[in-house]
Amino acid sequence: MSRAIVLSIGDELVGGLYPDLNAPRIARGLLEIGVPVDRFLAIADDASAVSEALREAGARADFLVASGGLGPTLDDVTRDGAASAVGEPLELDPTQLRAIEERFARRGLPVPESNRRQALFPRGSAVLANPWGTAPGFRLRIGRSLAFFLPGPPREMEAMFEAAVLPAIREALPPRRDSFVRRRLHAFGVMEAVIGERIADWMSGENPKVGTTVRKGEITVSILARGPDDTQARALADRAAEDIRGRLGEAVFGEDGTPLAQAFGRLLIEKGITLATAESCTGGLLAKSLTDSPGISAVFREGFVVYSNEAKIERLGVPPETIETHGAVSRETALAMAEGVARAARVRLGLSVTGIAGPEGGTPAKPVGLVFLGVCFDGKARAWRRQYPPSDRRLIREIAARESLNLARLVLLGRPREE
Amino acid sequence: MSRAIVLSIGDELVGGLYPDLNAPRIARGLLEIGVPVDRFLAIADDASAVSEALREAGARADFLVASGGLGPTLDDVTRDGAASAVGEPLELDPTQLRAIEERFARRGLPVPESNRRQALFPRGSAVLANPWGTAPGFRLRIGRSLAFFLPGPPREMEAMFEAAVLPAIREALPPRRDSFVRRRLHAFGVMEAVIGERIADWMSGENPKVGTTVRKGEITVSILARGPDDTQARALADRAAEDIRGRLGEAVFGEDGTPLAQAFGRLLIEKGITLATAESCTGGLLAKSLTDSPGISAVFREGFVVYSNEAKIERLGVPPETIETHGAVSRETALAMAEGVARAARVRLGLSVTGIAGPEGGTPAKPVGLVFLGVCFDGKARAWRRQYPPSDRRLIREIAARESLNLARLVLLGRPREE
Repeated sequence: MSRAIVLSIGDELVGGLYPDLNAPRIARGLLEIGVPVDRFLAIADDASAVSEALREAGARADFLVASGGLGPTLDDVTRDGAASAVGEPLELDPTQLRAIEERFARRGLPVPESNRRQALFPRGSAVLANPWGTAPGFRLRIGRSLAFFLPGPPREMEAMFEAAVLPAIREALPPRRDSFVRRRLHAFGVMEAVIGERIADWMSGENPKVGTTVRKGEITVSILARGPDDTQARALADRAAEDIRGRLGEAVFGEDGTPLAQAFGRLLIEKGITLATAESCTGGLLAKSLTDSPGISAVFREGFVVYSNEAKIERLGVPPETIETHGAVSRETALAMAEGVARAARVRLGLSVTGIAGPEGGTPAKPVGLVFLGVCFDGKARAWRRQYPPSDRRLIREIAARESLNLARLVLLGRPREE
Repeated sequence: MSRAIVLSIGDELVGGLYPDLNAPRIARGLLEIGVPVDRFLAIADDASAVSEALREAGARADFLVASGGLGPTLDDVTRDGAASAVGEPLELDPTQLRAIEERFARRGLPVPESNRRQALFPRGSAVLANPWGTAPGFRLRIGRSLAFFLPGPPREMEAMFEAAVLPAIREALPPRRDSFVRRRLHAFGVMEAVIGERIADWMSGENPKVGTTVRKGEITVSILARGPDDTQARALADRAAEDIRGRLGEAVFGEDGTPLAQAFGRLLIEKGITLATAESCTGGLLAKSLTDSPGISAVFREGFVVYSNEAKIERLGVPPETIETHGAVSRETALAMAEGVARAARVRLGLSVTGIAGPEGGTPAKPVGLVFLGVCFDGKARAWRRQYPPSDRRLIREIAARESLNLARLVLLGRPREE
């Protein structure tokens, strides 16, 4: 199977100023044509580092796609590093120089000396035109690698990757090669380890390759199937997805990138169920997650961020005694908030969240991370108690908001969890 | 100078599903203690790939910080790869096993068999406790590298990196070395190009290295100073920061990572100014941003997400005629919302946002990206009109929420922008 490396070049990357968004984009594109990437490498704008990285890649990969360091300024040295990696000089390409001159002429400007450097390429390389900016790219054979060099700005990189790199790699691939299809299942409310055990057989297999990842309480099962052609790879991926979905049951809320809030929103729109939210510790995050999805206005009426007790009482009609007796963070208050918001907003579904996100405000009886979640559907209210790890305010809020959406989802599916 | 490599392990990374956020965080932390990173390497969850990458790193770097692949599931093979890189077996650590068991016991759960794997470590490694999750890390000498292995979830990775990795590396460093100090200034409401021109002289210098980046409308000026010791590097960075801050004036809202919402929240708490929010298109994001900061409950009373016109009328007393005559997205409605929320919540400061986040709902007269922002302070209401690029619902919401906070910040500073 062909091996590919993605190389990202830039001081700002290894300096930690920006995340690298080019490499993931390139990796997705290559996988779609059947070339899985086995390495990302990021290095600084340093000619000898570039040259070293290219020689390494040339010894191990069939394809290399590099981005960055093709700008006009002196710290852009990718072309120099590439030239030294193949032991060739840089040569001026008159056509590209003319293109650059015309580009400036159109704007009535002289060509800055520095931009002339952008018409220099290692001898033996094929130029890749860049209609989207001043930095042309180039293609070069380095060791066993067919290497492509693209500018760093994502828009230019992506356009040239689509226009020049993918077609060239497709052409260079052996005619009979594997196809890859990826499926993803997203679950909430089950521990990763539990899921791992339920699908251990799939996870220990080689094809499809099945793995799990957790983000903010959401567990993603990723299925990557390989086959002699798209149809067979897809069939393999779909079979696995269907079987795994069956084993995970209602824990799966969506597929292939759908966020929980969006999956839940679709369910509401489909069933025409109006809703409103009342949240304390999540401070607006619950309403925000719901309104991330366009079209939700068809069912989402309004949200209350009832941070103070007065607001809980005035807006939602939570009885003051309830708060006095049981506290603002209690099952009783969560129930009263859910009923109250459904009544106040005249909707079928009311969601409530009240808890202690911390870092302050915890007590032995009610520690940071304690959250009560209420769901009132067609007049019947339920509430759930959760104790999240107290370490991180942001994470407590994010998991609580997702848990609220997931509990409501299960209620609508007629499968409420035990309270 | 010491060389460091950051290794990120995960199928989801080289598969292009998520950008790698751990490596930049690690690189920033290492740079702060004088260890610039010269390589990021990302590879799949594959024991032999891990082992190969570690042996390479062991031959070239003094320090290696790896994250990912320490989870409980079968696709987490970092520990196996590390063991094979040093030719040692995996051994069970009873203390860590007990810690894991207690962690589950506290939540009244049995330990899944797979979580027991997380107590396995290559012989000869030192365990790094993880009080924030079930996956402990470990430290291991590989070739000339002092290597650290951390779990992938950013929250756990970051906490362990701070607590266990940075101190250990600081200790292992030679006494005489260059110090690096980074300062950051965060600005809003000025174009990057304008800032670039105002500080062009700083940006063309070598030490300190000064650069700008834009994210969601916030512009960060990053200053990296190098010196023979911390004091001199810091003096250099501070001089630059002070001078640049002077040139950018009130556009600078915070420093060194302080988010706009937090800087604004501090200002409110300091001045004891109570506030409430009324938002339509931002759908809760404005309240959420404010309540990201702990302690804000001292001044933040409540928030209204008035998605429907009824809600605008009922909750905030926006006159129906105003909406009929000028529309829900109008300067008049924004003013009425800001006044209404200040009155309803009995606070000194009322913020309002109403706009069209898209992708649907735009008209020639009121295109997607049109937003009106209202600020009512001590009874005096103002509103501003903004037209953001229509391309991206999420971005429109995020910039609108920040703009609202920044306008209110300028009003409190007695420097309101022209409306």
